Amino acid sequence: MYYVDLNCDMGESYGAYRMGNDEAILPYITSANIACGYHAGDPATMRKTVQLALKNDVKIGAHPGLPDLQGFGRRNMAITAEDAYDMVVYQVGALQGFVQAEGGVMQHVKPHGALYNMAAAKPELAKAIAEAVYRINPQLYLVGLAGSHLITEAEKAGLRTKSEVFADRTYQQDGTLTPRSQSDALITSDEQAVQQVIRMIKEGKVLTRQGVDFAIKADTVCIHGDGAHALSFAREIRETLEKTGVKVRAMSL
Amino acid sequence: MYYVDLNCDMGESYGAYRMGNDEAILPYITSANIACGYHAGDPATMRKTVQLALKNDVKIGAHPGLPDLQGFGRRNMAITAEDAYDMVVYQVGALQGFVQAEGGVMQHVKPHGALYNMAAAKPELAKAIAEAVYRINPQLYLVGLAGSHLITEAEKAGLRTKSEVFADRTYQQDGTLTPRSQSDALITSDEQAVQQVIRMIKEGKVLTRQGVDFAIKADTVCIHGDGAHALSFAREIRETLEKTGVKVRAMSL
Amino acid sequence: MYYVDLNCDMGESYGAYRMGNDEAILPYITSANIACGYHAGDPATMRKTVQLALKNDVKIGAHPGLPDLQGFGRRNMAITAEDAYDMVVYQVGALQGFVQAEGGVMQHVKPHGALYNMAAAKPELAKAIAEAVYRINPQLYLVGLAGSHLITEAEKAGLRTKSEVFADRTYQQDGTLTPRSQSDALITSDEQAVQQVIRMIKEGKVLTRQGVDFAIKADTVCIHGDGAHALSFAREIRETLEKTGVKVRAMSL
Amino acid sequence: MYYVDLNCDMGESYGAYRMGNDEAILPYITSANIACGYHAGDPATMRKTVQLALKNDVKIGAHPGLPDLQGFGRRNMAITAEDAYDMVVYQVGALQGFVQAEGGVMQHVKPHGALYNMAAAKPELAKAIAEAVYRINPQLYLVGLAGSHLITEAEKAGLRTKSEVFADRTYQQDGTLTPRSQSDALITSDEQAVQQVIRMIKEGKVLTRQGVDFAIKADTVCIHGDGAHALSFAREIRETLEKTGVKVRAMSL
Repeated sequence: MYYVDLNCDMGESYGAYRMGNDEAILPYITSANIACGYHAGDPATMRKTVQLALKNDVKIGAHPGLPDLQGFGRRNMAITAEDAYDMVVYQVGALQGFVQAEGGVMQHVKPHGALYNMAAAKPELAKAIAEAVYRINPQLYLVGLAGSHLITEAEKAGLRTKSEVFADRTYQQDGTLTPRSQSDALITSDEQAVQQVIRMIKEGKVLTRQGVDFAIKADTVCIHGDGAHALSFAREIRETLEKTGVKVRAMSL
Repeated sequence: MYYVDLNCDMGESYGAYRMGNDEAILPYITSANIACGYHAGDPATMRKTVQLALKNDVKIGAHPGLPDLQGFGRRNMAITAEDAYDMVVYQVGALQGFVQAEGGVMQHVKPHGALYNMAAAKPELAKAIAEAVYRINPQLYLVGLAGSHLITEAEKAGLRTKSEVFADRTYQQDGTLTPRSQSDALITSDEQAVQQVIRMIKEGKVLTRQGVDFAIKADTVCIHGDGAHALSFAREIRETLEKTGVKVRAMSL
Repeated sequence: MYYVDLNCDMGESYGAYRMGNDEAILPYITSANIACGYHAGDPATMRKTVQLALKNDVKIGAHPGLPDLQGFGRRNMAITAEDAYDMVVYQVGALQGFVQAEGGVMQHVKPHGALYNMAAAKPELAKAIAEAVYRINPQLYLVGLAGSHLITEAEKAGLRTKSEVFADRTYQQDGTLTPRSQSDALITSDEQAVQQVIRMIKEGKVLTRQGVDFAIKADTVCIHGDGAHALSFAREIRETLEKTGVKVRAMSL
Repeated sequence: MYYVDLNCDMGESYGAYRMGNDEAILPYITSANIACGYHAGDPATMRKTVQLALKNDVKIGAHPGLPDLQGFGRRNMAITAEDAYDMVVYQVGALQGFVQAEGGVMQHVKPHGALYNMAAAKPELAKAIAEAVYRINPQLYLVGLAGSHLITEAEKAGLRTKSEVFADRTYQQDGTLTPRSQSDALITSDEQAVQQVIRMIKEGKVLTRQGVDFAIKADTVCIHGDGAHALSFAREIRETLEKTGVKVRAMSL
């Protein structure tokens, strides 16, 4: 039997600003990455999203980002390892407050956007993030790009890790994602996207842009939450996975 | 034997901006109220202040404020009870992250500035703050103005409370502080300030501006942390209290 | 001949967050109040909205608000008159930067949300705002609630003013708007809303909740910009006004 | 006769946080770079600093920075050229509001910290900043690192430029500053620092770390404003310059 987790970024609204379609997408996923107020999210949104996840029996993770609301945490910043440590403790702690208040349990931490990408590439940032998570709670899973420094540093730190793969992104022969600035970065066919994921889960391989396979571990698949298409894709990937013998369940189960 | 706690607001620096004299004042106090990033404080400052408090064997409390860094959390805002609940969970959770990461334990929560004053006067805000603290951790003490709604609502919520008094502020016959806008709001003589505190502790009374006594409970005294005078006053009040038979120890002991 | 201006709040998006439907609504209005980055808006949105307004031949105004992005500038804050002065100079200056850069001219200033409401009720805030506008550019029009302190203080300061009325809000016999907390605050029938406006323009009167008329000056009507209904209402009010002999044109013409 | 301008970063306080010693240093400088609220500064500080500069007959410049108050604008951010354009228009516009309100005239713009450094190295950012300044007011001077892209792009854009040199920093043979991460980045001897400046002004040369001269244009010297030493150094460099035949006067005179 094969298993996989479906995760989605959530709780990205801010004040009067709405983003995402959390309520509709929750039935299709197993893990929710909840924004913590730095790149998106505010305390009211965090509380409501924690409540929604618990109601849908979806596992909760913190989704800490860079302190850049205007840039939605997508612009790299020249932060130090200490900065990374501190901002992760702060944000994971804040979300944990809401999880405790609702009587829930936090499952994982997945850094957001530029923090995720920088941590994938820079061991010193990856190490600082892993230490932050470990020191708050060594039972938390750390989710990072499959094959990246975030995974290896988290393991060194003593954390359990979950390797994340992307359905709708193409890969390079070194296992990195094709940068969005390139024309072939995205897989626009839903069928192709789902097939890429199934092969990653069952064979542990992905066909790269260079025409060669790359060995990849697929513990959890990132599902996008925004837009009408996101919803139909979430439904489709979940159904197809289950039809082809892949059980969708939370990463910690 | 009489007992009292001395508390001080701490960790109010922000980025390149320094505020307070935390290292120097810590030896004289027993409880530190650490800013949580809304009215003051940033993640690095929070971490360092938690470390300093632990090193000095001073108990740690969260000091949540209004989201108004520019106004240092001193300007009243027309927030709802739900806003108050959410911002307290967020900030207490964030500080708790650092306390956990350092292997410490949080003792108390004391709202800051305008949030403290509004909660003293408005039962619905007091209740929301008390619920936030209780739901995060019912073992936490809630510190509020002696005789205020924050104390009574916290008790209703099932929390243990600590009544705070001020050494250098004068009182009105209804137990409220004389507003700073009035000329007789402050006690400028150190000796008078210390004597006011000693009488509150030993007799449970304070002489108000109207010339009549008001019954007051003095569990913890607020010490100011800024400036050279703050330091000498902290030293003096601690020494005088101990000389006159008042043991200074953390509120939870 | 009767004249009236139709104004709408614009440029309220922020970073990745979209708000409003500026492009669609611009053809129906004559004055745009552009958010300046405190309660909403960011530099990129300000630039684009200025460009859109110029392209649509719609006059440009600054829409300064309280420094409360999380509350969208709708929560009253206990600011001083000096705070109000400074935050208006800052925000009007910032928008003026974009207007200058695009070769345009700023027509007016209209405070937003809680700042607008507080300035309507408190002469000292109204005066501070009027002075801020006057000192930046005495040619600017100040838009405020008809009959409010903002109008009278602006006139005292030497500014030209424009009295704003609301189509879809009911009025009290003292000329204030019925608070949104009351069930009869809103006029939900489009026809009634348009008729209220036409009477205000032609007769200078509005029928209040108390059943008596209140004398009101209607220089400019506030049109809401959000939602599909907003668009159809904007179209309807504009067409009906013009059919009944009210020329819709910018307040400065 | 030789001429030079002495500039200093000012107005970097924020809310309750004090930074710098503006009042004391103003008598020794000729141009003030005033923070605009992104990396430092708030509206009240901007107003007071503009007033102080006018009172001391010191010329006023805008000092726009990255939107990173926590990092004081010193952390590089992966902004686009469009981001740079927009944030400069916003901040220069905001400061211009205060200058207009006080009846003054703005002389120059000097980007701050990481924005300054990134603009020195990246032509596309330099160009965007130059265009922002030009479109707001083509009469403004743009101040940048001597020999950097900010100077060349500003000239291409049609702006007048002023080349900035540093008294207490060492130079590399390509004209860049020795990074602060290197041990020989700073000149700690006041005398040496002053002599470096005098040679740059009179001979147009600076001796680099590699032992060879680099041709450099010294229109304006950056004076640091923080600390007691800053003050004595400002006094010393001004006196020594004037004694050795270099007239200190604002860059626009």
